[in-house]
Amino acid sequence: MLETIPHPSAPAPDILRCAYMEIVVTDLKRSRDFYVDVLGLTVTEEDDTTIYLRSLEEFIHHNLVLRTGPVAAVAAFSYRVRSPEDVDRAEAYYREMGCRTERRRDGFVTGIGDSVRVEDPLGFPYEFFYEADHVERLAWRYDLYTPGALVRLDHFNQVTHNVPRGVKYMEELGFRVTEDIQDDDGVVYAAWVRRKSTVHDTALTGGDGPRMHHVAFATHEKHNILSICDKLGALRMSDHIERGPGRHGVSNAFYLYLRDPDGHRIEIYTQDYYTGDPDNPRVTWDVHDNQRRDWWGNPVVPSWYTDASTVLDLDGNPQPLVVRDEPSEMAVTVGADGFSYTRKGDEEKGFKLGNTL
Amino acid sequence: MLETIPHPSAPAPDILRCAYMEIVVTDLKRSRDFYVDVLGLTVTEEDDTTIYLRSLEEFIHHNLVLRTGPVAAVAAFSYRVRSPEDVDRAEAYYREMGCRTERRRDGFVTGIGDSVRVEDPLGFPYEFFYEADHVERLAWRYDLYTPGALVRLDHFNQVTHNVPRGVKYMEELGFRVTEDIQDDDGVVYAAWVRRKSTVHDTALTGGDGPRMHHVAFATHEKHNILSICDKLGALRMSDHIERGPGRHGVSNAFYLYLRDPDGHRIEIYTQDYYTGDPDNPRVTWDVHDNQRRDWWGNPVVPSWYTDASTVLDLDGNPQPLVVRDEPSEMAVTVGADGFSYTRKGDEEKGFKLGNTL
Amino acid sequence: MLETIPHPSAPAPDILRCAYMEIVVTDLKRSRDFYVDVLGLTVTEEDDTTIYLRSLEEFIHHNLVLRTGPVAAVAAFSYRVRSPEDVDRAEAYYREMGCRTERRRDGFVTGIGDSVRVEDPLGFPYEFFYEADHVERLAWRYDLYTPGALVRLDHFNQVTHNVPRGVKYMEELGFRVTEDIQDDDGVVYAAWVRRKSTVHDTALTGGDGPRMHHVAFATHEKHNILSICDKLGALRMSDHIERGPGRHGVSNAFYLYLRDPDGHRIEIYTQDYYTGDPDNPRVTWDVHDNQRRDWWGNPVVPSWYTDASTVLDLDGNPQPLVVRDEPSEMAVTVGADGFSYTRKGDEEKGFKLGNTL
Amino acid sequence: MLETIPHPSAPAPDILRCAYMEIVVTDLKRSRDFYVDVLGLTVTEEDDTTIYLRSLEEFIHHNLVLRTGPVAAVAAFSYRVRSPEDVDRAEAYYREMGCRTERRRDGFVTGIGDSVRVEDPLGFPYEFFYEADHVERLAWRYDLYTPGALVRLDHFNQVTHNVPRGVKYMEELGFRVTEDIQDDDGVVYAAWVRRKSTVHDTALTGGDGPRMHHVAFATHEKHNILSICDKLGALRMSDHIERGPGRHGVSNAFYLYLRDPDGHRIEIYTQDYYTGDPDNPRVTWDVHDNQRRDWWGNPVVPSWYTDASTVLDLDGNPQPLVVRDEPSEMAVTVGADGFSYTRKGDEEKGFKLGNTL
Repeated sequence: MLETIPHPSAPAPDILRCAYMEIVVTDLKRSRDFYVDVLGLTVTEEDDTTIYLRSLEEFIHHNLVLRTGPVAAVAAFSYRVRSPEDVDRAEAYYREMGCRTERRRDGFVTGIGDSVRVEDPLGFPYEFFYEADHVERLAWRYDLYTPGALVRLDHFNQVTHNVPRGVKYMEELGFRVTEDIQDDDGVVYAAWVRRKSTVHDTALTGGDGPRMHHVAFATHEKHNILSICDKLGALRMSDHIERGPGRHGVSNAFYLYLRDPDGHRIEIYTQDYYTGDPDNPRVTWDVHDNQRRDWWGNPVVPSWYTDASTVLDLDGNPQPLVVRDEPSEMAVTVGADGFSYTRKGDEEKGFKLGNTL
Repeated sequence: MLETIPHPSAPAPDILRCAYMEIVVTDLKRSRDFYVDVLGLTVTEEDDTTIYLRSLEEFIHHNLVLRTGPVAAVAAFSYRVRSPEDVDRAEAYYREMGCRTERRRDGFVTGIGDSVRVEDPLGFPYEFFYEADHVERLAWRYDLYTPGALVRLDHFNQVTHNVPRGVKYMEELGFRVTEDIQDDDGVVYAAWVRRKSTVHDTALTGGDGPRMHHVAFATHEKHNILSICDKLGALRMSDHIERGPGRHGVSNAFYLYLRDPDGHRIEIYTQDYYTGDPDNPRVTWDVHDNQRRDWWGNPVVPSWYTDASTVLDLDGNPQPLVVRDEPSEMAVTVGADGFSYTRKGDEEKGFKLGNTL
Repeated sequence: MLETIPHPSAPAPDILRCAYMEIVVTDLKRSRDFYVDVLGLTVTEEDDTTIYLRSLEEFIHHNLVLRTGPVAAVAAFSYRVRSPEDVDRAEAYYREMGCRTERRRDGFVTGIGDSVRVEDPLGFPYEFFYEADHVERLAWRYDLYTPGALVRLDHFNQVTHNVPRGVKYMEELGFRVTEDIQDDDGVVYAAWVRRKSTVHDTALTGGDGPRMHHVAFATHEKHNILSICDKLGALRMSDHIERGPGRHGVSNAFYLYLRDPDGHRIEIYTQDYYTGDPDNPRVTWDVHDNQRRDWWGNPVVPSWYTDASTVLDLDGNPQPLVVRDEPSEMAVTVGADGFSYTRKGDEEKGFKLGNTL
Repeated sequence: MLETIPHPSAPAPDILRCAYMEIVVTDLKRSRDFYVDVLGLTVTEEDDTTIYLRSLEEFIHHNLVLRTGPVAAVAAFSYRVRSPEDVDRAEAYYREMGCRTERRRDGFVTGIGDSVRVEDPLGFPYEFFYEADHVERLAWRYDLYTPGALVRLDHFNQVTHNVPRGVKYMEELGFRVTEDIQDDDGVVYAAWVRRKSTVHDTALTGGDGPRMHHVAFATHEKHNILSICDKLGALRMSDHIERGPGRHGVSNAFYLYLRDPDGHRIEIYTQDYYTGDPDNPRVTWDVHDNQRRDWWGNPVVPSWYTDASTVLDLDGNPQPLVVRDEPSEMAVTVGADGFSYTRKGDEEKGFKLGNTL
């Protein structure tokens, strides 16, 4: 992680969208069961050490790479850029920032061509690529759909110790903030930033970082998400459900958070809104608004605030953590020192479990 | 409440279904806002003290009566019987049991004719009637449907101190048990009993009773239930959501529990299964199975176990409570003295909130 | 078929519900592909000549029997009765009517015990049984659910040449009419009759009979039905979709009609309403009301009116047809000699395809 | 319409998305009933001659303008551009093409600032603007949602006599083709072109043009679309349903076509796929593939092919039509001279209504 984040003079690459995540899992067979048999992702390709998975509407090679390794972690947050030249731009941009970069003309993983990976100023392993093998877009293959069909990779979510610092860097990289959570003192607890015209391609969540908070896949409808819960119940795997299902305040999407066999957090997500206009209104939520994270006021479980996945540097070693020095969202909203309201100004406490902590 | 429950020689009335509940509310306007403007029940008739409400597929006068009064309580659990003669049978049946009964040829409430009300052996104000005014069945009136349209009264749920004692009485009255929750020592924590061909017309939940645990309305689909949560969020009334939405283990239905302005609990419910065959298999759940009450393993909030509505005797006075002398479901499943498992035999604890209590 | 239908003095059997249909198919493998691989019914048991299938919420052995034979036909419409004695009652009842009956203490098919089959007064092969093997109710097995999961057998539909004649017989057998279609001259075109508390266990549709019009399975939600269409499209089997999906006027249910590889018609159906009260209001539709068969006014395809399956006598021979002598619904509603209106009194013609025939 | 379409040297404006349509209606009250009371669009502003309507997730002033006038027609297809300068670019671009343009610094309609309107080379009244009043994005206002809630303007659809000619112009304007319909002789029957990352912002449909084929609004889920049909049935307005609901082959979206009181065609649409990558694979459909327009093979009604709305020039006069000189899609697919197949190579005819024409 860089102490101060430079402002490069080089142009930023033109990023299209979050495209795939590469994660390290400790038991490939067990992870395959989870992502393929339970969640229904499609195997594009696989061998003894690596599985390449995609969602039903994807036409590039994969949205998720499972690679076997000794320690569960995230090896890459990968973005697709608009052209081959944008890979050059990405390389130059990060080099100017003083970040470590590594360029591989044949790609770091199967199915992806010329790529650059960087250790970004926040300490995350970011990748940028344009070249990708095309595969069948399975959108019309309803014979392959499951009740919980995952149709698209939607976004990443990253934990970083100082959100405004991270946002500034992301904005210079070309991202736009769509929503955030603040308090009256101006502390920013989280921010959502996008390139494609949804609420986000990634979000920055305040906490000890760099860590990966979650990766999210989209379904078409809400019942698809409910059916994933039903199936996990039937398989006696309901303890993989960490939080939800519910309606987010932020993003207005319907959500569910799962934990994979290594504890990596997966969100299933549907129905946020179009954000593609340059003057798209930013929505700022009060951290004490009890509907910001769950529109129905259902409590956020502590693990959702505290747990996140290790990220790797370009040598495959875990990145050290920087401790958040600002208040934590959990501390200011639940428990003895925090508070949340349903209606601004409310004094009384409700009967919900979250309020009893 | 009767100390011992006699076994009458008189024939039991032929009960069709749970038909309506009469509840006392302390602020009629506020309750009207909740049931009509928020939940979208249809007003069949109303005056300064009473509102008669029905669901969209109902053809009798009402499914819920709101009556203003000084103390929030339940005045009647009302069942429809197959014929006028079954009202006579009900009266004779309860008289033989030594229960107090009151017969009114013109009915206790508008829209309902010849009825008998009884203080039943468990202390509940039960009503039986056949005659009812017919009103328009609004099933085809999609111009009146809201996103959370309630189409049918589904069931009652009653708190009683000794479930097997209550079940025996209900079975003699002609009800059949479809599901129950027990432990290895044979303690019964709850039982679901039905007349119509669904999982229940009422359920007996173990606790200090007699109290009314909830009354449930059905929707057609799961998204209807989700939309009620969304609307409560939009109205900044999310603290009316007590538990859920979720999937029940018991009944396999999708559910949501709300609290009305007086704290009366309302369930919204959809998609249980046909139970009309005499050999319909009873499902018995282990009280320690963490998926029995929520198939997804989401925690039951404490208030759901502890809170319930006062019920009235035939003079309108609150019925005294009999304390449950067997273990409480909450005590044996959560906290220091209890445990729940996702898979029978599991030792490890999960990360869910319920496990942290 | 009997010329006149006697009124037996013997008591009618107490029928619970339509339980299964036995159909003859000409290519068992091809039918298995359709019912198991495409529609997702569960195989309880199978051998070289017969496949026993059930829906996800069923606990008796099967809801559909596919038996290989030289000519596509229906061998039995089977109803479950309340008790073993009701099988005796059924036998006596039909014998008194002068109908041919056959009793088999071990059942006619695997999984079903003591049964009586009859050639009923309308010429249909009806079966009545109580004893049935119990199998796992798969309601909670969400790991087995497909996007178009069929959860329950809902109803049969039979073509008979004179509907009022058939209705009279069914009413004496204990069925109740819930809805019908008539014209101003009192011609009855179809009637829906029920034992269980839904709109029907079977319906009588006017036409040359006896023939089987369709057998219907229920899903939980409307999207389940849409997903079956999507899957048929993906498999390039969309020509198996005969009519719909759409919303019925009659029954208010959401529907889809398919044709199996032999042309047997299958309906997929969801969300009609509770009909269990004895004074449940009958709904009579005007045959010229263009929303009676499709609430959205979408045209009924001619084949839906004209095609139906042969039914067999107890020797397995096709029943001869009696020609309908009253007007056909198709003739009076479409084409040069018929008319349909969206609003009673409408003169103008709309732009829909059905109106252009 | 221009005889030949020049290729301007000036840069094309950077178009964000289709933003609103201005239509002329002959009875403003009747149209208001349709768009507001039936479809539930939100009135941003209105006066005696004009109503400004928006969808629930929109933050600019309107997505649809209803203006009273003597003849039903379309006055503007309006696109939002990325910046104020792009309005200048649009003006210069069309001027260089020799098109008539009109610039109004205060906008042509309330709520929209500096705009240019042009008579484009295909004869359509196109508008480009950046400045727009912001209004409340009602996405979170679930208290305002109806069962058929329209959340977004999705696309336009235009009839033009020569599709490849039109496509070439649109591509130079910066649009990208996502899907099209062709035959083996290379005749192009329709093409879908996009700026935002959906399947289209507009489509070109072959026929006598310029005419407006339809304007489409998006819902979140499929049941929302079904509920619009149900409501139209309840209001006895089912003859406003022209085609569908169904699943498109092209775009993979779920659809419904309505006709407003003047005959303007409105599509309700949900769930196409992300198209934002520059190498997004184009899908080309065979015009004889019976699943191209309806994935379920349900017939396209003739009116859908033949009817469309008049478009106006900048003086408000109807644009004259240019007759299509290539085969019509209806002629080559239905009736004596056309054919459609479910499976490529099929010979047999199915039983569907469309095949009987």
